[in-house]
Amino acid sequence: MAKQAGLEGVVVAEITTSFIDGSEGELIYSGYAIEELAENASFEEVLFLLYNSRLPRRSEYEALRSAIAAQAGIPDAVTAMMQSLPKDTPAMAVLRTAVSMLSAFDADAENLSDKERAKAKSLRLTGQMTTICAAWMRIVKGLEPITPRPDLSLAENFLYMMTGADPEATACAALNVYLVLLAEHGMNASTFASRVITATGSDMHSAIVAGISALKGPSHGGANSEAMKMFLEIGTVGNVAPWFEANIKSGKRRIMGIGHRVYKTNDPRAGILRRHAEALAASSGTSQWLDIAVALAETARADDYFIQRNLYPNVDYYSAVLLYSLGLEIDMFTPLFAMSRIAGWSAHVISQMGGRLIRPKADYVGARGLKWQPIDER
Amino acid sequence: MAKQAGLEGVVVAEITTSFIDGSEGELIYSGYAIEELAENASFEEVLFLLYNSRLPRRSEYEALRSAIAAQAGIPDAVTAMMQSLPKDTPAMAVLRTAVSMLSAFDADAENLSDKERAKAKSLRLTGQMTTICAAWMRIVKGLEPITPRPDLSLAENFLYMMTGADPEATACAALNVYLVLLAEHGMNASTFASRVITATGSDMHSAIVAGISALKGPSHGGANSEAMKMFLEIGTVGNVAPWFEANIKSGKRRIMGIGHRVYKTNDPRAGILRRHAEALAASSGTSQWLDIAVALAETARADDYFIQRNLYPNVDYYSAVLLYSLGLEIDMFTPLFAMSRIAGWSAHVISQMGGRLIRPKADYVGARGLKWQPIDER
Repeated sequence: MAKQAGLEGVVVAEITTSFIDGSEGELIYSGYAIEELAENASFEEVLFLLYNSRLPRRSEYEALRSAIAAQAGIPDAVTAMMQSLPKDTPAMAVLRTAVSMLSAFDADAENLSDKERAKAKSLRLTGQMTTICAAWMRIVKGLEPITPRPDLSLAENFLYMMTGADPEATACAALNVYLVLLAEHGMNASTFASRVITATGSDMHSAIVAGISALKGPSHGGANSEAMKMFLEIGTVGNVAPWFEANIKSGKRRIMGIGHRVYKTNDPRAGILRRHAEALAASSGTSQWLDIAVALAETARADDYFIQRNLYPNVDYYSAVLLYSLGLEIDMFTPLFAMSRIAGWSAHVISQMGGRLIRPKADYVGARGLKWQPIDER
Repeated sequence: MAKQAGLEGVVVAEITTSFIDGSEGELIYSGYAIEELAENASFEEVLFLLYNSRLPRRSEYEALRSAIAAQAGIPDAVTAMMQSLPKDTPAMAVLRTAVSMLSAFDADAENLSDKERAKAKSLRLTGQMTTICAAWMRIVKGLEPITPRPDLSLAENFLYMMTGADPEATACAALNVYLVLLAEHGMNASTFASRVITATGSDMHSAIVAGISALKGPSHGGANSEAMKMFLEIGTVGNVAPWFEANIKSGKRRIMGIGHRVYKTNDPRAGILRRHAEALAASSGTSQWLDIAVALAETARADDYFIQRNLYPNVDYYSAVLLYSLGLEIDMFTPLFAMSRIAGWSAHVISQMGGRLIRPKADYVGARGLKWQPIDER
């Protein structure tokens, strides 16, 4: 295998969007600790922060929120395309296709160089991705999609478009915090893919489509789905201990959502998500999945294997419970991740625009000097 | 800027598909010089070679050709989606969307680990991309798409689906050689993008969609379009000398399609394409664009600036004339590039499957330690 097959430690860009200190369990967006943002910020404020390296004033905030909400509608042709798909199409494939198709209806799709217009375009796409996600959830159930409301925040609009009802405050707060926490995370694989596309001079839609394509991979965006499948398999709090004994102590399987490639202590996002999952459970009166998740995390925390290796619940672990509690099917978990991460992708795309073509090297280890043979002499 | 922003010289993979020696003007596919393949091979043989590192026996060749042709049809829903797009949608955006949508109708789309099934899937997609390209050319003109024939080669099928008539031998040979020459070129930006996607465990359609997204960038797949626009602007052989004086000698512009990032001598593909462009001109009796291209290349070859810098016509220069002579609009040039390059993309994808997540690093150069301020105090 090539020495730098994973490009670990190779610095491809200087960024101002986020900083991660895995050994300290620290994540900051443009100077602000993630805990402060989760406590205080709307997703729209985080978007502005990632684009501009400062928080918006009230008028700027309202302009951005309104630009997203007012342009979040999708053309009828895109809805019709989604309605023509088999109902069992993976939601990430639907999202990838719908975002790609949207470019055909975006008057500014082929702008490749103006960064301000690129920002406006990505705000449009941010709202539209929300609408696509909500629309697909309804199409799968045989329901008509609901159009977005211009007066709502992105989190509110998504929940509104799921059901058509005014969303509850606890649910809005939980979804907003999820969107804030997943918005950006340095040079991960999908963000890097978006940058590789952008470096060829290609357009915003192409770059976001590539981000979605990368996030679709189980090693990248699939972990919270796997965590939820595990909670469903466990089924009851009473089954946590025997399940742990049979599957984890035995060394047969790993706990999905515990441990992280970067964080070697608490993932700062996990505790915040847990608190919002608790609020959702209190509000709905249903704590089945949260109880299982908490009991399993406590079982792991008391186990030598996990203690010695510094394995803690990561962002995927409690976000699984949070998203499921909001009424999302597992197939929608990764699209919701994309709905948030477009913030980071687009900020990176705008920063990469006009940059150098990204073209690494390969070592040729095949044959040389072969001579052509006619087909019947092979 | 980060030191390795373009990843020049960073080795991310060992490959057996192709080797380029830019200083010697050498390109080989899996051991065979490109000149030998251009002289003898069909695109289907090259596909087999890139997948298997050897040329096919007759039965293997026929099985592969037939698998491509028999599965090249696209679902009605995909055709309907294309028909619902504005006619001025860039053909690369159409191709990106249609390929993405095809996954919803591919029973094997979500296979992420079986390399033999991945090969079968990419052969299907190879034929379908040909059909999409030909269908879009007809849809733009208000014509009904034509379904592929199971008895034809890929080059023949494309030309057949353009017009519905049996294609001429000279045209088939020219298109076949174009497809052979563009099929693979080491670790270029689109191939690398496909690999980044694959390394997350994502699927073949996602990887090819990312390849298309990268190739769409003017710095990657746009050069032959720019070359053709230049020939059209020059308009007549008589205008070559004054155009060169006014635009090139003056230092105002560069000649599109002359000079290459890798090749510092003749691009071995350029001469082969020129000979096929000559055959097309002789067959059709129209040599206007070829004459302009040849005259401009000769003017440049006699000029000190080009001599000192070792600037020669590259693959894009004569492929522009070749594709235009086949009746393709400029907007279709990059889709035709993709129609060929899926061979290389898919060979790289299959090789990358199961490999390490590709995740480089970024240096954070933004602020730290900022404190949250309420929105009205900013």
